[in-house]
Amino acid sequence: MRRIFHRLLSPEEALKTIEERIKSMKKPEREVVKISEALGRILAEDIYAKVDSPPFDRAIVDGYAVRAEDVYQADEANPVKLKLIGEIEVGEIPRMELRSGECVEIATGALMPRGADAVVMIEYTKRSGDYVLIYRGVHPGENVAQTGSDITAGDLVLRKGKRLNSRDIAVLAAVGYDRVIVYKRLRVAFFSTGNELISPPNPLKPGKIYDVNGYVIPAMLRDLGLDADFLGILPDKYEIMLKSIREALNEYDVVMTSGSTSAGAGDVIYRIFEELGEIMVHGLRVKPGKPTIIGLSRNGKLLVGLPGFPLSCAMVFIHLIKPLLNELSGAEEEFHYWKVKAMLPMRIETRGGKTWYIPVQIVDSPRGLMAYPILRGSGSASTLAESDGFIAIPEDTLFIDEGEDVEVNLFEELRLPSISIIGSHCPGIDLILNLGEIYDAKVINVGSLSGWKALKLGTADVAGTHLLDEKTMRYNLHMPEELGLRDEVEIYGGYIREVGFIVAEGNPKKIKGFEDLLRKDVIFVNRVKGSGIRTLIDIELKRMGIMDPEKRIKGYVYEAKTHTAVASAVKNGRADVGVGIGYVAKLYGLDFIPIREERFDFAVRRDRLYKPAVKKFLKILKSERFAEELNRLPHYRVHEQTGKRIYP
Amino acid sequence: MRRIFHRLLSPEEALKTIEERIKSMKKPEREVVKISEALGRILAEDIYAKVDSPPFDRAIVDGYAVRAEDVYQADEANPVKLKLIGEIEVGEIPRMELRSGECVEIATGALMPRGADAVVMIEYTKRSGDYVLIYRGVHPGENVAQTGSDITAGDLVLRKGKRLNSRDIAVLAAVGYDRVIVYKRLRVAFFSTGNELISPPNPLKPGKIYDVNGYVIPAMLRDLGLDADFLGILPDKYEIMLKSIREALNEYDVVMTSGSTSAGAGDVIYRIFEELGEIMVHGLRVKPGKPTIIGLSRNGKLLVGLPGFPLSCAMVFIHLIKPLLNELSGAEEEFHYWKVKAMLPMRIETRGGKTWYIPVQIVDSPRGLMAYPILRGSGSASTLAESDGFIAIPEDTLFIDEGEDVEVNLFEELRLPSISIIGSHCPGIDLILNLGEIYDAKVINVGSLSGWKALKLGTADVAGTHLLDEKTMRYNLHMPEELGLRDEVEIYGGYIREVGFIVAEGNPKKIKGFEDLLRKDVIFVNRVKGSGIRTLIDIELKRMGIMDPEKRIKGYVYEAKTHTAVASAVKNGRADVGVGIGYVAKLYGLDFIPIREERFDFAVRRDRLYKPAVKKFLKILKSERFAEELNRLPHYRVHEQTGKRIYP
Repeated sequence: MRRIFHRLLSPEEALKTIEERIKSMKKPEREVVKISEALGRILAEDIYAKVDSPPFDRAIVDGYAVRAEDVYQADEANPVKLKLIGEIEVGEIPRMELRSGECVEIATGALMPRGADAVVMIEYTKRSGDYVLIYRGVHPGENVAQTGSDITAGDLVLRKGKRLNSRDIAVLAAVGYDRVIVYKRLRVAFFSTGNELISPPNPLKPGKIYDVNGYVIPAMLRDLGLDADFLGILPDKYEIMLKSIREALNEYDVVMTSGSTSAGAGDVIYRIFEELGEIMVHGLRVKPGKPTIIGLSRNGKLLVGLPGFPLSCAMVFIHLIKPLLNELSGAEEEFHYWKVKAMLPMRIETRGGKTWYIPVQIVDSPRGLMAYPILRGSGSASTLAESDGFIAIPEDTLFIDEGEDVEVNLFEELRLPSISIIGSHCPGIDLILNLGEIYDAKVINVGSLSGWKALKLGTADVAGTHLLDEKTMRYNLHMPEELGLRDEVEIYGGYIREVGFIVAEGNPKKIKGFEDLLRKDVIFVNRVKGSGIRTLIDIELKRMGIMDPEKRIKGYVYEAKTHTAVASAVKNGRADVGVGIGYVAKLYGLDFIPIREERFDFAVRRDRLYKPAVKKFLKILKSERFAEELNRLPHYRVHEQTGKRIYP
Repeated sequence: MRRIFHRLLSPEEALKTIEERIKSMKKPEREVVKISEALGRILAEDIYAKVDSPPFDRAIVDGYAVRAEDVYQADEANPVKLKLIGEIEVGEIPRMELRSGECVEIATGALMPRGADAVVMIEYTKRSGDYVLIYRGVHPGENVAQTGSDITAGDLVLRKGKRLNSRDIAVLAAVGYDRVIVYKRLRVAFFSTGNELISPPNPLKPGKIYDVNGYVIPAMLRDLGLDADFLGILPDKYEIMLKSIREALNEYDVVMTSGSTSAGAGDVIYRIFEELGEIMVHGLRVKPGKPTIIGLSRNGKLLVGLPGFPLSCAMVFIHLIKPLLNELSGAEEEFHYWKVKAMLPMRIETRGGKTWYIPVQIVDSPRGLMAYPILRGSGSASTLAESDGFIAIPEDTLFIDEGEDVEVNLFEELRLPSISIIGSHCPGIDLILNLGEIYDAKVINVGSLSGWKALKLGTADVAGTHLLDEKTMRYNLHMPEELGLRDEVEIYGGYIREVGFIVAEGNPKKIKGFEDLLRKDVIFVNRVKGSGIRTLIDIELKRMGIMDPEKRIKGYVYEAKTHTAVASAVKNGRADVGVGIGYVAKLYGLDFIPIREERFDFAVRRDRLYKPAVKKFLKILKSERFAEELNRLPHYRVHEQTGKRIYP
């Protein structure tokens, strides 16, 4: 038994180590399947054509079968007259033989009669009793598909190891196969592990979270055409885990787990894999994804222990495990060509020393695809959902510069949204999208300022914004100048929202104004920097002369990403007060103390105004129906500039 | 009942006409599915988060939970000493409350204790009895994921109409769903029609061909996530077809057929669709694909009649029917982003007046993706198999110039081969690929000269060639100069093959030499222009003074694409003699009259020598094992230059 202790491998080293072992392992078993059920399966035999295709000389147009030499001179002015001696339908065996001066009516796909060597298209002929006038010459072989010209009996048409797509199935049928030998599908068992995990929809208890990997990894496995079963959540107990994994090894080709791989969790998975066989990889030199363990059971099956955090788990799965499963499947071509080249819109620095996985969102821009890094924690389920893929920066690369091309490993097939709305979070946006039936929008709530930055980068088509200018106390119109976007954006009037303090029902802490935030008995929940609300808060605090709010206001450093996150914090008692829109206070059944009305507008990149979804968005914004529906939302109203261009 | 007679629609007009009708139709029925079975299904409800994610403040690293203000000053030189008051495992509810000067050991994912607002990574600490030394400061919130910071309860996380991918399923689990409401899968019935069709593996009779569409269209439908059933081949009989289609309408959401749509076949499908409802499209202004009929049954179901030729059928399906099925499914985003931009390596001219579908093969080149038109008949099954997709040239475009970018509609997900070998057909190539286990090669047999042209274009990495130079009577070495490829290619010595006449067993026509081809009682089968064999034939005929072979040799104008096609023609009696390699004569049990030995070499683009599969190819060519195996093939042998560079 070979052991690799305390030596982290790079993903490339790990792949090489395991691939060498896999090569010596036997291919999966074979089975015979009907070609109608062979889609996505892997051929386990070379396929030779059983018949010629086409199996006979056939007409490829509707017209008249002729001897080319008879009509060689024919043209519009000098038609050639041929005697019609019969008709051949598709599937019929012609009995006649064509002699000079004769022709036969023939249908597309019909067998050519003896003596004929070309077909004149019906468009260039005229029937006249028993005769046909030919208005265009043909050369021998014209409009005829020759026997075996496409595929000849005996030709090698498909190779062993090919993953069958629908067109391969076309070829199989054309050359006479109704069944083929394929490798059996790899069967993969998956366990989530960890005492903190609960399956939805069971109610959450403190300290517990819903299991995600148990759904996402089996879904990814099925997407690859494998048989995957999620066998449940295992607690962090050595004996229980050992028993479950041992049983799964009897039935499955691969057993995968997630979680319980880090030192903090007592390295349970390591000990179990070691008990069941041999460890090939104990830790990867990647971030995130270090706690990855790969082993080989004594009965020759792959054991994979993935990290517990969903994003890390998915990235290691795609980068390292997917190619291994492909080889184990008997395939000689990769599962999917799920990689794209994209331009990095900003410099990324790593500290080197390991491979860095950086999740990215892909956005189409006039300069081509751009890979926009998402720099959030790997524990985030929404990072996984929002990112289209990730870049793997090798350990000897310390940075990638702005504007460089990177290869993005996609989680799935790339889909580009019809409109990309990045910026401040507002239920009004949802209303526009619903009214416009724009369902494939990408909406990313990162606050007004980040929305403007995304506009500048070109990753956003539209940004929702409510940034107050301290100097003029007006909203949004100062931004194009400030960001050097004067000629590049237009701003359209949005609507008015009422902003205020969100407090528990009955306002138990008796909050009346910003001065109450300084009280010792009040815990505040802040908003992220760059959000419109945060800008408002900081302007108000400054006016009050408070220059060190992080020291004087409890909770000031805790930054909620969205309005709803503020309401949620108040609702659950984690904070006593936050600032947000009245609409959300109402939604959460909380009390609301108005501070001021604010303008929420939409900045749009000029070079995206052509996009149908952008046009639709602006059209809805200006519509009567939107005005009616918006006015019905609590603490919202349209104004005379709603839907109109207000800049430039 | 509205009728559109004798007016062909463009694909865009057809799409618009039908989409308008579809909009007024009701959405598919809904059903509840477990999220573990929801992959690829279409959401029929908006999804709002049931819980916060994360549901509590949690550590995102292993380390010590602290009050940030306690360790603000800590660095390597001045560690801060904190009292360790406990430990929190993942999933556990902490009972302690942290006071100033204290810390708690905490695992990744564990719930933060009261009083703590940051976590110091274990790497920057040192345990010492009941105390911990902290070597790095943290700011409040560092290494902590805040409750709801990722997704907040009540957030709209997924919209109705979304096609669920594996990461959407991750989000569903994270926010507390184990089931969702989705639209029922569209059920599609498919019939192939035509008297000429037989299902494999039944033996072919004259005039019959194997049905292809019955396999490929249902496979494509399933690839789109629909329920598709192939209900068999229908004969061209009105009453039988009507009954079968009527029955299918009761059970399925969509009924599709292929074939029997053209005027030549009596327009049976048109008459049936008219009987069952209303015709929306009767003929498309596209080539190929004109005989396409689309209707709507009286019970509100889509009726689709596709052309019979597999390639036309597949192209119309992808371009026109796929988007319609998507809308009928209730989806608000397209099935797949199966389109790529690629550069056209040659000018294409159409005659305008209709949309032209041109099948293309995609090749990766140093200049990016190139779309290489395949200009063969639409009846060809191998054109469908070899093409990656097609370009649709609109009717107002008369040509697309060399070097222009085109949008390619892909049949399926794009896969690029590891090596592209275009040129002359030789079983020796199969041997190299098998020995090298290079299974994902793209091998296109188009003759030596076309192989050189593909090398020049950059679409081929390697070309197999056996072109005789009339002047020097040497093989291949004149080509780089002739095509202006002097600095761009290298030629590697291949092997010797014996070429001769292929005749029926016993040589019944007593063929001895080229002069026998002139005999009235001899039918010849030629090879395509640009093939090495054709070059040889034409040189020999010229030497004999024959300048008009197409008039003097029967069958001279019939051009077989491959050696095996020649042998097949002789075997089946369609020709008496052809020229080809001895190996194939032997394979077909035919007699062989040697003419000469020829050199088969490999030309390789220099800028592809880096490709692993190209390296492997050349390595195998030079290997002992290849020499042994090749010498075992009849009429083949290696020579002293096999595997060596012979040019430059």
